[in-house]
Amino acid sequence: VCFQRKIWEGKTKIVFSTKDPNLIILKFKDDITALDGKKRDVIPGKGRINASVSSKLFTELERRGILTHFVKMVNSTSMLVRKLDMIKIEIVCRNYVAGQFARRFPMFKEGAKLSRPLVEFYLKSDELGDPLLTEDHAILLGLTSRGEALRAKALTLRVNEALTTFMAERNLKLVDFKLELGRDGSGKLRVGDELDADCMRLWDSETGNVLDKDVYRKGASVAEVQKIYGELYRRVVGG
Amino acid sequence: VCFQRKIWEGKTKIVFSTKDPNLIILKFKDDITALDGKKRDVIPGKGRINASVSSKLFTELERRGILTHFVKMVNSTSMLVRKLDMIKIEIVCRNYVAGQFARRFPMFKEGAKLSRPLVEFYLKSDELGDPLLTEDHAILLGLTSRGEALRAKALTLRVNEALTTFMAERNLKLVDFKLELGRDGSGKLRVGDELDADCMRLWDSETGNVLDKDVYRKGASVAEVQKIYGELYRRVVGG
Repeated sequence: VCFQRKIWEGKTKIVFSTKDPNLIILKFKDDITALDGKKRDVIPGKGRINASVSSKLFTELERRGILTHFVKMVNSTSMLVRKLDMIKIEIVCRNYVAGQFARRFPMFKEGAKLSRPLVEFYLKSDELGDPLLTEDHAILLGLTSRGEALRAKALTLRVNEALTTFMAERNLKLVDFKLELGRDGSGKLRVGDELDADCMRLWDSETGNVLDKDVYRKGASVAEVQKIYGELYRRVVGG
Repeated sequence: VCFQRKIWEGKTKIVFSTKDPNLIILKFKDDITALDGKKRDVIPGKGRINASVSSKLFTELERRGILTHFVKMVNSTSMLVRKLDMIKIEIVCRNYVAGQFARRFPMFKEGAKLSRPLVEFYLKSDELGDPLLTEDHAILLGLTSRGEALRAKALTLRVNEALTTFMAERNLKLVDFKLELGRDGSGKLRVGDELDADCMRLWDSETGNVLDKDVYRKGASVAEVQKIYGELYRRVVGG
């Protein structure tokens, strides 16, 4: 496998083409951002950690029969993945009340467990502030069909079950996470993008300590963020 | 029928109890408000107009077999209605792109016709800014059940068909409207609240002229608003 040209660079990842038109490489950068990119820093080692955590979690999903884009690691910060036709929706799955959901619905106590997992769709659009979408909005916007929306929701709930169990074995509560799904060559839905502390909330089951990007959002120093990401790496990947 | 005590006073309506615990009276005030009540005026004759327009539209729905809370007018500004167990959701149905939907999704051209009617749920809460709800949110918040949400959506689409036809015969485009539904004694859903220029957008089919509360939101004088409401009254009720 070899990198060809850079086809896209985002806030925290770079996408490279390969000789195989069906495969691309995702390179994880050390950058961290929050507030739609207004806050920005570099956490040395973060790219390697997020690549390893994502690789571990994609492998775990595949082991349970859930299709993902993951093929293999090509170096410590880069993953070879299938190129998918991405659904332009940020899918969020919540088990506990946190973040903007807590602010939107203050009648739910922050940290409380929801009576069952909640799946939400958001439009991927920084300019529009990632507005919430109902299924009807997503269909009207041409982002998905009724049938695919239902399959996407069911797949998200399966991913939630798998990750919740995996994290519980490591003494972690999976509070919520963001998924991006895409269609492969045969039209099947696969989990794409990344699965790491940048796109999920994880709290220590006993102490409640936060082991995800929220520490950065809430103002932790680069050294503190580095420590937290390292701790998550040890729990999820090492040991 | 006689008014007993005032049980609630809102921005534009007063609710009175009657001797029959299953019936209440809605009295329409001349007040008009916008921006969650921050803008406020009195439009002489508006209460009478909104009561007449609502009465006419509820009667039209009933004629088509759609259940409503309407019983009869008791005087020119007051309607006798069944007391319902209200669903605490503002249901919005949209046929054309306008208002906050246009601002939220600027990829749709303002005034464009949607490929099919869209039904949205919003939480009734001025303090929280009436946030959009998915069906799952509404259920999680305990506002409705899956089955009732589906029935509410189907009922809203029937109301939309009825009102769209009625308005088209009067050379008016029904752009969008807000519904509030409630459960009657036997658990059936009925259309409650009001149906008038305060809760729907109506544009003249030929000129595109606005015949609803948007003229007030956009800064028209009391006299201009009075003229527009009077014009709508003549089209819907008179003649």
